[in-house]
Amino acid sequence: MSERHISSDYDRALEELRQKILQMGGLVEEHLTEAMKALVQRDVALAKSLMHQDHPVNRLEMEVDDRAMRLLALRQPAARDLRFITMSLKISTDLERIGDQCVSIALRALELQAEPPLKPYIDLPRMALLAQTMVKESLDAFVAHDVVLAQRVLERDEEVDQLNDQHFRELLTFMIEDPRTIGRAMRLMFVAKSLERIADHATNIAEEVIFMVKGEDIRHGKAMPEGKG
Amino acid sequence: MSERHISSDYDRALEELRQKILQMGGLVEEHLTEAMKALVQRDVALAKSLMHQDHPVNRLEMEVDDRAMRLLALRQPAARDLRFITMSLKISTDLERIGDQCVSIALRALELQAEPPLKPYIDLPRMALLAQTMVKESLDAFVAHDVVLAQRVLERDEEVDQLNDQHFRELLTFMIEDPRTIGRAMRLMFVAKSLERIADHATNIAEEVIFMVKGEDIRHGKAMPEGKG
Repeated sequence: MSERHISSDYDRALEELRQKILQMGGLVEEHLTEAMKALVQRDVALAKSLMHQDHPVNRLEMEVDDRAMRLLALRQPAARDLRFITMSLKISTDLERIGDQCVSIALRALELQAEPPLKPYIDLPRMALLAQTMVKESLDAFVAHDVVLAQRVLERDEEVDQLNDQHFRELLTFMIEDPRTIGRAMRLMFVAKSLERIADHATNIAEEVIFMVKGEDIRHGKAMPEGKG
Repeated sequence: MSERHISSDYDRALEELRQKILQMGGLVEEHLTEAMKALVQRDVALAKSLMHQDHPVNRLEMEVDDRAMRLLALRQPAARDLRFITMSLKISTDLERIGDQCVSIALRALELQAEPPLKPYIDLPRMALLAQTMVKESLDAFVAHDVVLAQRVLERDEEVDQLNDQHFRELLTFMIEDPRTIGRAMRLMFVAKSLERIADHATNIAEEVIFMVKGEDIRHGKAMPEGKG
């Protein structure tokens, strides 16, 4: 009876940790949507408000890390839970850095506001949507321990890289034809780079999930010896 | 007697984890030196060899993570050691990504080889030296639990950002004056961006060190409640 009670406390603590990560994920997804909206709709007020919105994300990162460390300190989690908890520490870092990239996109949106639009936004929103899907799917894979879904995230990363290359070449053409576009083109390239980094972070999360579930390290294509939990 | 024996095994395991991280740090510092050498001296062979040298870094990341997870699984580390071990997991990620940036610099060095030099390299080597110092000092701070040194790393990050801004403006001038320089200038900007990211990773490590030592989270300027280890 007492043991079951402890175990249910423990399960609840694990579940809360999972929920905190999902909450953090939901928040950065929302920030990405808004940063892109600020860019595409040239919404200065929205861009400015986003510049100060990394605090809740940072706060959540600390909460995730704190919960993970308490679980490690107070319980003796076994193999699979141990992986889940330690990977939570890595995933919180990735999500926090996605939040940073959203702030960076908002900053570019603000700078771009000062000049007339260079071209209609087509590739960037597509990249953003893809990156956002990757973040969402990597966290869904995390919650459901779904290796197949995590694998799909890894495949999508190549699409993002392709879109980024295409976007880069197009902007290069603009810059070469008319040097007055250079400043704007550079800023758009930095937005693309932020989106690429967000996709990279989602890829990292997906790799952590596969590692967590399979207990082997696919992050660098090599198997890792199992820890004896 | 038996307890002392266990404790000494435990201390040895902690020390080995610390050594693995230092080894990883030494390796990425070396890669940064070589990537910059490949760029400045236009050394194609060196650049090419670096393209495949992230395997040892990746392998070390897995070793660090594996050791950290074994320590968490087999021992019940108390507050300070727990922080050290969980922060090791975060630091290994930062070091691995520094390694990725070195590969990225080597790739740019290779691409830049195909065209005549745009300008003498002055700012980039200075930025690289600064970033490398930051990596080294952040790890020294980690080993020595030295908060003052970690704090110095945070200050240096501003210098890197300033150099990067200066470099960016100079390249922008080149691009505007002569569109034929755009391709090369872009690549040099991406090198600067890689160096800035390396400095950011060192900053992250320094912040983790301060967190580890002080037990409070300065990462986002907020104190974190102490875990009861």
